[in-house]
Amino acid sequence: MVSEERGGGGEAAAIARRVLGGDIRAAARLMRALDDAQPWAVGALRELFPHTGRAQVIGLTGSPGAGKSSLTNELIRHYRKQGKTVGVVAVDPTSPFTGGAILGDRIRMQDHALDPGVFIRSLATRGALGGLSRGTSDVIRVMDAMGKDVILVETVGVGQDEIDIASLAHTTIVVVVPGMGDDIQAIKAGILEVADVFASNKADREGVDRIERELKAMLDLRETLHHPGDPDAQHRFTAVPTALTTDDPTWGPPIVRTIAVRSQGIDELGAAVARHREHLEKEGKLATREAVRARTEFLALLREKVLSSALLRLEREEGQLDELAARIARHEADPYALVEDVAGRLL
Amino acid sequence: MVSEERGGGGEAAAIARRVLGGDIRAAARLMRALDDAQPWAVGALRELFPHTGRAQVIGLTGSPGAGKSSLTNELIRHYRKQGKTVGVVAVDPTSPFTGGAILGDRIRMQDHALDPGVFIRSLATRGALGGLSRGTSDVIRVMDAMGKDVILVETVGVGQDEIDIASLAHTTIVVVVPGMGDDIQAIKAGILEVADVFASNKADREGVDRIERELKAMLDLRETLHHPGDPDAQHRFTAVPTALTTDDPTWGPPIVRTIAVRSQGIDELGAAVARHREHLEKEGKLATREAVRARTEFLALLREKVLSSALLRLEREEGQLDELAARIARHEADPYALVEDVAGRLL
Repeated sequence: MVSEERGGGGEAAAIARRVLGGDIRAAARLMRALDDAQPWAVGALRELFPHTGRAQVIGLTGSPGAGKSSLTNELIRHYRKQGKTVGVVAVDPTSPFTGGAILGDRIRMQDHALDPGVFIRSLATRGALGGLSRGTSDVIRVMDAMGKDVILVETVGVGQDEIDIASLAHTTIVVVVPGMGDDIQAIKAGILEVADVFASNKADREGVDRIERELKAMLDLRETLHHPGDPDAQHRFTAVPTALTTDDPTWGPPIVRTIAVRSQGIDELGAAVARHREHLEKEGKLATREAVRARTEFLALLREKVLSSALLRLEREEGQLDELAARIARHEADPYALVEDVAGRLL
Repeated sequence: MVSEERGGGGEAAAIARRVLGGDIRAAARLMRALDDAQPWAVGALRELFPHTGRAQVIGLTGSPGAGKSSLTNELIRHYRKQGKTVGVVAVDPTSPFTGGAILGDRIRMQDHALDPGVFIRSLATRGALGGLSRGTSDVIRVMDAMGKDVILVETVGVGQDEIDIASLAHTTIVVVVPGMGDDIQAIKAGILEVADVFASNKADREGVDRIERELKAMLDLRETLHHPGDPDAQHRFTAVPTALTTDDPTWGPPIVRTIAVRSQGIDELGAAVARHREHLEKEGKLATREAVRARTEFLALLREKVLSSALLRLEREEGQLDELAARIARHEADPYALVEDVAGRLL
């Protein structure tokens, strides 16, 4: 087993072949090897790459307690009924210290544990290098290569994670629920541009009319929000000027009422996702989405590669990172000078 | 003005001197220049660096709707009453497209807009390179240099953002509220290790006893959580092995009841933060926290520097990133080969 894990190009090709044949154990092993940053794993991804690009990637996001896992569970059932195979990537807000996963949510999805047409993989949100997208896009790539028709990417949390997920999905479902408190404006402001479909979940609860009314009002204000008149907006740091965006003024995100725990509204939600897909195809926007996905994946790969190479070299030349940090903390080393110095020698 | 903005070493030194004198306009200009990645701005940070390290950095985190902004507002009042100057960094879940800020929250803090002892700065969560920490640690550095006694860093959202914030703070307050829904377990699992103090806010609401009971049970289980027995845990990608952590088994995070909108429990919360600070000093753990902070800042600097250098060179040699992404999406270019190739030539 050890020699196999450490295998070179031959092993990469063998694992890739098995993944392309839909082999679950080979896929799981490749994903672990990617987590461990084993060199042969990237070789396997290169073998898989030409055979990918067929899967439909659907992102699910929304605040904690919105019922995303239950909805994911129901969407698995929906697509399985259509005879499609399904991959699920569950991105957890795991601690970087324990690596512990959220058992409750995963257990909910175990309805499908014995179905060979469903492959579920949990991911910690991010490694020490800040790479949500790297791990997520690798897993999407492997599931795509396995032949999964639909890949559901579920992320917990509000903030950048959900925007990252949107840049990896063809269609992004944002789940909202009544009674999210007085920061609802904050949540909406961050997700308006990335939502292709809204699921108004727990729609039997009080306040559902209000939240949908607010949502519609926010969508009507969208044009205004695109130009918020915030002078600081031009000063935000964005080192990668880009024309590629998932924002699409020709699509008005529908709001679909669901009650996931009672399996209600799921077919309607699936239909809304299908309509969005048709829209992308008809308007020639699928290529743009694919390019956004490719850019996100590529930047994540590049970020990890150059940073880990820089760190390796830094530690060789300057000593362990932790000791370096302690010296900076004691003001014995200047972090700005150090970075310029290291980058100057490296690049 | 234009020539001043573009100024070289002389300008950096002049701005740094004004920042050290507490000049708000100079500090704001430097922060904007850092956002814009203007070369002279890093020079100014280098000038400031020897004069920093005195401020107490307090992180506030918790899910949307927990009342973090109201608590921040009350903590500003608390520290001002003690005669301390206060800096506030509000990290918003802003869209990367609009750069729009959450006006409601900011307005709540405007109670202190006319107080020269308070400096408030909003930050987008992350630039295109994935660098929350870079911007946040830069702003902390500048406020520290201005002579702010206390710097409050408030972040919206659950997930990696709050863990990043914890690695930049001496003390991290996690705000919980009753009725956060059935994902409360998920929220807790991610934040247990980073919480130094819990604020049980909106403590007049039904369910406060239950949430505190659950929290205590989770804290009792802490030891177990440190060894979750998840075989996958060992396989998570962490390219930076480290002994430095903010986790501290000798400190039991207290739970302090607050009702921010009625200014209740704030002095008790401030006292808990002060006790934690004393604990760090008495146990000799302040140096560890400082080293964690330094490492986080340094890694963020390095990540941004090497990635932006790599991208510049990539675009010079391979064409614009967007075109490259489109080629990858059409499977005309292999992202894995491209990254190896670029990194190989660079490093």
